[in-house]
Amino acid sequence: MPAQPSHNPPPATPDALRADARENRERILRAAREAYALHGIDVPISAIARRAGVGVATLYRRFPTRTSLITEAFAEQLTECSGALDEALEDPDPWRGFCSVFRKVCAMQAADRGFTHAFLARFPDESSYAGERDRAEEGLGLLIRRAKEAGALRPDFDVSDVVLVLLANNGVTNGAGPDATAASRRLVGYLLDSFRATPARGPLPPPAGLELDRLGAAG
Amino acid sequence: MPAQPSHNPPPATPDALRADARENRERILRAAREAYALHGIDVPISAIARRAGVGVATLYRRFPTRTSLITEAFAEQLTECSGALDEALEDPDPWRGFCSVFRKVCAMQAADRGFTHAFLARFPDESSYAGERDRAEEGLGLLIRRAKEAGALRPDFDVSDVVLVLLANNGVTNGAGPDATAASRRLVGYLLDSFRATPARGPLPPPAGLELDRLGAAG
Repeated sequence: MPAQPSHNPPPATPDALRADARENRERILRAAREAYALHGIDVPISAIARRAGVGVATLYRRFPTRTSLITEAFAEQLTECSGALDEALEDPDPWRGFCSVFRKVCAMQAADRGFTHAFLARFPDESSYAGERDRAEEGLGLLIRRAKEAGALRPDFDVSDVVLVLLANNGVTNGAGPDATAASRRLVGYLLDSFRATPARGPLPPPAGLELDRLGAAG
Repeated sequence: MPAQPSHNPPPATPDALRADARENRERILRAAREAYALHGIDVPISAIARRAGVGVATLYRRFPTRTSLITEAFAEQLTECSGALDEALEDPDPWRGFCSVFRKVCAMQAADRGFTHAFLARFPDESSYAGERDRAEEGLGLLIRRAKEAGALRPDFDVSDVVLVLLANNGVTNGAGPDATAASRRLVGYLLDSFRATPARGPLPPPAGLELDRLGAAG
């Protein structure tokens, strides 16, 4: 048999290969974030591959599990959330720290719809998110205790009210269209006002006992 | 040609016919409410007909336009809303009246997801909803003015904050699953607390200027 002429491009340099791989990776992560924002984290892998313009096999080579893709896609936002919590815990004013976490996380929710879908949502417990989530719950618990002990946060504030805020903010940012950021700020302003301890408060309806996992189901 | 034997059932009495038609109508309205709850008010008529187990032609005979179907499907809830507003306006205590409207409408939202989709949403202005909406806006304006004049409602409360509450409540009831009612009550409790005029309030972020129409886009 005569030798086939090669139609392949000349072999790329290692640098060019690395740049290619990096670009592919970024394209997949961007497509994943867009798809999650539009359709939630249950969107099929094939739809993400199509959106990124890569084959499903290529996608799986870079991100062997669904969880690894989601984790990577939102790594930046998760780091930002942990950072917000750490900063809040270091704030010498417990009330200011408490407020800053809500303001930052709700602003992130308003800026990126996909984030809510992914945030601490329906992940298998062995995923790297589970550790983050436990750490977040611990940090929030401490933040709340400090703010109550300082007499700044109303004593009947419940840890499940954190989820209540995030779900409410999700509703506002989903529904407010181009006014999402302004509407989210206004909502958070009102809610923080009502969380503040003041002598004249009446009794509240009991806490709804929402778990952080509920956020996963919030469209 | 020989006469065809008739396979039709014996002719129904007028009463039975009326009962049949009524049952059909109820079945269609029930299917419509379920479909709106699941998929929003943009769900195709054919899907509603399928769910009701009737033909598209039958559905169109009873409800010649999409708007007539939506209006009928939520007639009861709309009447309840108007009633809540009227009662609130008659309450000698403007603050109690103000609170009662939010409590009632948010409880309705929590009980029926489809209601939010339909509530004052993206209707052609000539529909019978437009008149209801104008009336609701007028009534709300009056309710707010009275509560402010009584010194009970904070002066920086804006009429667009009504939409903010409904969007937030929508997020909570969509996301809270079986805890929807408890979560909605808790949220409304917090928000009404923060709407109450008290001397120590700080400034709020500016109103988001949301229009009632925004509710239509809230999934």
